[in-house]
Amino acid sequence: MSKEKIPYKIYLEESEMPSAWYNLRADMKNKPAPLLDPKTLKPMTAEALSGVFCDELIAQELDENRAYFEIPEEIRSFYKMYRPSPLVRAYCLEEKLGTPAKIYYKFEGNNTSGSHKLNSAIAQAYYAKKQGLKGVTTETGAGQWGTALSMACSYFGLDCKVYMVKCSYEQKPFRREVMKVYGASVTPSPSTETEVGRKILAEHPGTTGSLGCAISEAVEKSMTSEGYRYVLGSVLNQVMLHQSVIGLEAKTALDKYGVKPDIIIGCAGGGSNLGGLIAPFMGEKIRGEADYRFIAVEPVSCPSLTRGVYAYDFCDTGKVCPLSKMYTLGCDFIPSSSHSGGLRYHGMNSTLSQLHYDGLMEAVSVKQTDVFEAAEYFARVEGILPAPESSHAIRVAIDEALKCKETGEEKTILFGLTGTGYFDMVAYEKFHNGQMGDYTPTDEELEKYKAKLPKV
Amino acid sequence: MSKEKIPYKIYLEESEMPSAWYNLRADMKNKPAPLLDPKTLKPMTAEALSGVFCDELIAQELDENRAYFEIPEEIRSFYKMYRPSPLVRAYCLEEKLGTPAKIYYKFEGNNTSGSHKLNSAIAQAYYAKKQGLKGVTTETGAGQWGTALSMACSYFGLDCKVYMVKCSYEQKPFRREVMKVYGASVTPSPSTETEVGRKILAEHPGTTGSLGCAISEAVEKSMTSEGYRYVLGSVLNQVMLHQSVIGLEAKTALDKYGVKPDIIIGCAGGGSNLGGLIAPFMGEKIRGEADYRFIAVEPVSCPSLTRGVYAYDFCDTGKVCPLSKMYTLGCDFIPSSSHSGGLRYHGMNSTLSQLHYDGLMEAVSVKQTDVFEAAEYFARVEGILPAPESSHAIRVAIDEALKCKETGEEKTILFGLTGTGYFDMVAYEKFHNGQMGDYTPTDEELEKYKAKLPKV
Repeated sequence: MSKEKIPYKIYLEESEMPSAWYNLRADMKNKPAPLLDPKTLKPMTAEALSGVFCDELIAQELDENRAYFEIPEEIRSFYKMYRPSPLVRAYCLEEKLGTPAKIYYKFEGNNTSGSHKLNSAIAQAYYAKKQGLKGVTTETGAGQWGTALSMACSYFGLDCKVYMVKCSYEQKPFRREVMKVYGASVTPSPSTETEVGRKILAEHPGTTGSLGCAISEAVEKSMTSEGYRYVLGSVLNQVMLHQSVIGLEAKTALDKYGVKPDIIIGCAGGGSNLGGLIAPFMGEKIRGEADYRFIAVEPVSCPSLTRGVYAYDFCDTGKVCPLSKMYTLGCDFIPSSSHSGGLRYHGMNSTLSQLHYDGLMEAVSVKQTDVFEAAEYFARVEGILPAPESSHAIRVAIDEALKCKETGEEKTILFGLTGTGYFDMVAYEKFHNGQMGDYTPTDEELEKYKAKLPKV
Repeated sequence: MSKEKIPYKIYLEESEMPSAWYNLRADMKNKPAPLLDPKTLKPMTAEALSGVFCDELIAQELDENRAYFEIPEEIRSFYKMYRPSPLVRAYCLEEKLGTPAKIYYKFEGNNTSGSHKLNSAIAQAYYAKKQGLKGVTTETGAGQWGTALSMACSYFGLDCKVYMVKCSYEQKPFRREVMKVYGASVTPSPSTETEVGRKILAEHPGTTGSLGCAISEAVEKSMTSEGYRYVLGSVLNQVMLHQSVIGLEAKTALDKYGVKPDIIIGCAGGGSNLGGLIAPFMGEKIRGEADYRFIAVEPVSCPSLTRGVYAYDFCDTGKVCPLSKMYTLGCDFIPSSSHSGGLRYHGMNSTLSQLHYDGLMEAVSVKQTDVFEAAEYFARVEGILPAPESSHAIRVAIDEALKCKETGEEKTILFGLTGTGYFDMVAYEKFHNGQMGDYTPTDEELEKYKAKLPKV
């Protein structure tokens, strides 16, 4: 198709928006391994999970055969407030790079939470409300998930209790205030509100907290509070299911214009945005209907897919959650401080892990300074200031487009632009001032944590 | 039309986007009074303005007869990156309020500058580039205009020199960093770079600056630097012309669905967003083709339309700019510190002033705490965290919708949601903590400044 016929931004009509989420596992020949109970090492049952998670979300988590889950009307109404998200043809970027490649990105940052997280937050809040719960608990690091959940809970009139890693609570007061606008209670973690929090504070007075600790507090709070359950913003297959709305919209938009991507790129932390973006395309690939290259991009500082092992491990640092078979660096691995908080996770969604293990999806890792270079370049030509996490995908999309420039190939590249960087200006400032470091863990370091993996 | 037929968000096709800006003055029976040279008290000529402003912008500023100015192709391409902006049907707000009113808002915040300012910034940068200039200078208070101009200059490869009021420079480091991402140089004002800056620093050591001072520095810099001109983000009629893209898009979107608003509401600082939103509707009203109620909303702390006088006054506190006939509080009036930096202007666009004087547009003023109450309410039901400035319009839209609830009238309300509040969390925090004040100037205070108006 000619350039003239494809607009800068493709917005679907409301009637073209997906009416069901797609569960990629239903089409996979090698299913991801089941979650295991860390005590019995047997697959987790719905019953065992029901004290922590909402019932319908557990059903979604455990179902690997049903391909489509209808999106309830209430969630579709909420989606209509901020979706469809635009599929953007990056004409300006292509021209600036001088590449024959055609570049598209699915932009999920045009909502107040600033990222794709809202797609799953609203679903999880809906099922919690439907179950008659009073509220939900969760943890947040950089704050995007906490913000998204606050918005979703506000919409359904649910109480929302967020444990925010103490150093973020203090360093990112604006994120904290956005959550409060939406009525959430935000507690710096570790806190004296929970047993695990009090224990950690006694052992490590003055600690500024960690995501692992915040998870443990949120889980404990959900189990000790009547009418509360715990919800999680990534890693789980239920989250990847909800995020399939990204890929389904993107595919519908491309199909309208007869465009077929050659390469699909996404950043990978816990894996939910990448999994959601690639889901319908990967389904086609597995069913033999089309072929695509998929590239997961992770930071060199936290290289689970590129340097981790494929094994059972705890989903959380606090070791209170089930075991998941995944690419992992070991749940005791603490990634070096970086400016992509959303990618600092030791493991990876189990479905994406299986796909990578089966050779269906590639993975690369990139340096932080290279990522910010791409972020600033992109901001200047495409006008959107990207989140550091999302900029990992930008980096590799630009690299692939530059390869096309060398070879003259007119490849079509699709990448996920998961969010905006408006709350990440400290990181941009460090980059400008030449104060940003790049840390790559040594082999010895990584081996140390892998040696501690649970024996399954 | 039934609810089912109107989507939550109306996006125009690229082909439906305006190809020309609309100059409302061409249809006005009583034209706004001309700008006067403060020395001669004679109308400013293009020649006299050409040392400060770009030539084509001067032509637009002075032209009160030509109804349409074609939007150059390069600007239309840029508009396509972030426009059309959505016209949103506020179904959730209507339901929550329980009003029979139908509420629409035109949302201009979905771009990295966070507001409508980009619509004029890109136009002004384009004409500067076309004239072969090296760069432009400007001032910024809260930072939205500076950000928009930085983005626009980056796109056309122009140098951008921003004088940022020193207290904002220090209190809003993130805004400053966004400008730097786009390659602008940002100087805290007053600075030692200009004569006027050095003079102010000598007289008031330790001052944290003011918008008036920053304007004076930016104007001086443009006049003393080869290949530079000064640009301004509001107040002028050229800016209102560019902002007509807001109203033109809104009208096209409403016309597509056969919707005719009864009331059109916008916040008013310098007046450009309000002027842009109402322009095509006001044109119809003046030509007798349709009738609408227009409401300008301003803060009680800076009530130029509601408590000012209609007279010639300086556009700037520094008294270096021409005289404009407008509703003004006196250019020496310093509004009390508020969290709506964009509305802290002593005067008003001359076209809007004339329309208000002629009884074609109403004006109301609202209290800051009432504005934040509306802002938070809106954020929770519509999902968008609004800028404090924009929330002035939200407040009055909600009030009008509640009147409809009392009377049972099914009025259609359109308001302008000019931007997002992501960089205004300090203000939201103060509101939550009950630390936000409301200041209404006394009559005595206002009289003091009016008495100092220039004698014309």
